[in-house]
Amino acid sequence: MPTSESPRRSLRYEVRHSDRDAVRTIVERTGFFRADEIDVAVELVDEHLARGLASGYYFVFAEIEGAVVGYSCYGPIACTMASYDLYWIAVDPTQQGQGVGRQLIQATEAGIAAAGGRRIYIDTSGQPKYAPTRAFYERSGFRCAARLVDFYAPGDDRLIYEKVVAEEWKSR
Amino acid sequence: MPTSESPRRSLRYEVRHSDRDAVRTIVERTGFFRADEIDVAVELVDEHLARGLASGYYFVFAEIEGAVVGYSCYGPIACTMASYDLYWIAVDPTQQGQGVGRQLIQATEAGIAAAGGRRIYIDTSGQPKYAPTRAFYERSGFRCAARLVDFYAPGDDRLIYEKVVAEEWKSR
Repeated sequence: MPTSESPRRSLRYEVRHSDRDAVRTIVERTGFFRADEIDVAVELVDEHLARGLASGYYFVFAEIEGAVVGYSCYGPIACTMASYDLYWIAVDPTQQGQGVGRQLIQATEAGIAAAGGRRIYIDTSGQPKYAPTRAFYERSGFRCAARLVDFYAPGDDRLIYEKVVAEEWKSR
Repeated sequence: MPTSESPRRSLRYEVRHSDRDAVRTIVERTGFFRADEIDVAVELVDEHLARGLASGYYFVFAEIEGAVVGYSCYGPIACTMASYDLYWIAVDPTQQGQGVGRQLIQATEAGIAAAGGRRIYIDTSGQPKYAPTRAFYERSGFRCAARLVDFYAPGDDRLIYEKVVAEEWKSR
C-alpha cells in the first residue's frame, strides 16, 4: 500500500487549466454530487485560474505519477479574522482507502496554519449516505459544532464540522 | 407614533441606483459595521443593479415620504431546496423603535414564503453590543439554532438564527 512517503504520490499547490477536467471527473465519479454542485466545483477552479489567490480559493492536488487522484479547495471566510472554509475535498473512488484524503486534509491544515488561520469549518449533509464522510472528518480531528435541521431539504440537515488549528500545530 | 398603516411610510421592492448611497449611509450610521462590511452591503446592491433577480439578492426598502430609512437584503441559499439567508437588515438610528424593522422583516418573510421558501437564516455576532439585534430577531420569531465559538475572532462567536416559514403562513 502506498504511504504518504511513496515516491509515486505527490502534492501540487498551483492550479492548471487541466485541473478543470480533473476536478469535474473526480467529483462526478464520487457519485455524491448533483450536476449543479459539480458545476460549482469547476467554477471555483475557474475563479482561481482567473484571479489567482485573490479569488480566495486555494487548492491542493494529490497526484499519482502525474495524474490527479484527489483534491481539496479551501479559503479564508470573509469578515472573519482567522477562520477558513474547506469547500471541497474529494478523492477518486478507485484511489480511496489509501490515505489520499488524509494526506490532502493534512496539507490543507498546514496551509491554513501557515497563513495564520485558527479554525477550519466544513459543511456536510446529515443524510445516511454521508456517514463515511462524517467518519472521515471525525477521524481527522473535526467535531460536529452545529446541525441545521432540514437546511438542504426536508430530511436533509446541514452539519457544520469544526477543527481548531492551535498555534503549536505549526511546529509539528 | 407612525404605524405600519401610516400613509407616510411605504415599502419598495425594486432597486434604484440611488439605493447605493442610501444603503451605505444607513449601514454606516448604525455604527455596527466595519468599512469592509459596509462595502459588501453596497456590492450586493451593485450585484442586483447589474444582474437583477439573477443576482440572488433581493431587497425591501422602507421609505418615509420617499426617503429610505431602512432596508433588508435576502436571497435563496445555493444548493438548498427552500432555504433563504437574510443577509442584511438595517434601520437608520433616528428611525429605530417605530416598527420599521418589524415591517421590513415581515415583508421579507412574505416575499420568501411567496417564492416557496420554507426556512430563513440570519447570521449575527454573540458580542454584547449585538444584544438588541438578537432580541429583535427573537421577538420576530427567530431562534438561535447554532453557535460557532470564536468564529469571527477570539471572543466573537457566530450565531445562526433560524425561522421556519410554514405553508399556512402564506394565507395570513
